[in-house]
Amino acid sequence: MNKIITVGREFGSGGRELGRRLAETLGYAYYDQEIVSEIAHRTQLSEHYVHQIIERRPFESFPIHIGGTFQTLPYTLLEQNSSIIREQTNIITEMAEKSDCVIVGRCADYILRDMKPFRIFVYAGMENKMARCRARGGEEMSDKELKKHILDVDKQRSNYYNMYTDRVWGDKINYDLCVNTSGVSIKFLSKVIADFYREFIGEQG
Amino acid sequence: MNKIITVGREFGSGGRELGRRLAETLGYAYYDQEIVSEIAHRTQLSEHYVHQIIERRPFESFPIHIGGTFQTLPYTLLEQNSSIIREQTNIITEMAEKSDCVIVGRCADYILRDMKPFRIFVYAGMENKMARCRARGGEEMSDKELKKHILDVDKQRSNYYNMYTDRVWGDKINYDLCVNTSGVSIKFLSKVIADFYREFIGEQG
Repeated sequence: MNKIITVGREFGSGGRELGRRLAETLGYAYYDQEIVSEIAHRTQLSEHYVHQIIERRPFESFPIHIGGTFQTLPYTLLEQNSSIIREQTNIITEMAEKSDCVIVGRCADYILRDMKPFRIFVYAGMENKMARCRARGGEEMSDKELKKHILDVDKQRSNYYNMYTDRVWGDKINYDLCVNTSGVSIKFLSKVIADFYREFIGEQG
Repeated sequence: MNKIITVGREFGSGGRELGRRLAETLGYAYYDQEIVSEIAHRTQLSEHYVHQIIERRPFESFPIHIGGTFQTLPYTLLEQNSSIIREQTNIITEMAEKSDCVIVGRCADYILRDMKPFRIFVYAGMENKMARCRARGGEEMSDKELKKHILDVDKQRSNYYNMYTDRVWGDKINYDLCVNTSGVSIKFLSKVIADFYREFIGEQG
């Protein structure tokens, strides 16, 4: 069975970079935006729309209760959202079956649970996440706006994960290793975790 | 400044063994029960009593609100409990100032926060914790009793930590690394974490 690492991450924690560097160091395939592109390709929907559904607004696909009556979305929208979620599961499973890989986000830890992935969660203190966001752009936001943005993105990720998996996003029991990136270089951390993981699979395998 | 590792742990997760092995591997001093013994020695109270206060029933030392009036404990008890908590802080600080060390539990991560310890939290799934408890005795308890016991001990640790530190026990943001020991040998894990830590302090220091 292929070796799979999944990386859940708080926005601004450096989790995506950590996943990419981990894949480079270990010589594994790396999947992140590729998943969105492939879903878009298969469903003939735009990448922007797919991204919104699988990271941001899955709830639009469910009946909404307003003033005592249930308002539902048009059938085509419901169908679209279901097909996006179905394709996400298919694609992540196919990727994991193809080769050793690192997959960032997208409930991959849950989708691939039968393949026993090594599940990492990456987090950091708010100040540290704000500093990382500033370092990669986002100068136009005030501190208050940036903090709200970080919390909003994580709330969306959390909502999606909790709904899709029936588990709690970021709850350490769902992960093998949770790493605080506050004040540590991601480049360095990815090297240390790669070493940790090599020993880990050596022992397990 | 000395190198300090603190280990918080869920009951039955193997955290104490992990701390001890980590100290052996790194050649650091190891403090766990020694803290209780030293507090007992300095306060002239029994180890059993000290253990109860710093791990189990700190709330007895605070006023209890019953039927609209405040019931307080006798002054001597209050005084005893305060001196235990004061000595705990003193002793842990002295230990950390003496040499590189690993300290298990007892809010050491909080007490030593100015010394920037490397803070590990060790946890595991309930089934795994029950199996570890069984392996080291506890055959006389039913599964239900054992599960309740594990939850009770952790609830006491959590209450004490939350009260003493104003932080949330087990919340990953208070730790640098959180490790799930489910299905992994502690002996092996302590070796991998020691390697991780060696690289970590190499980079930092």
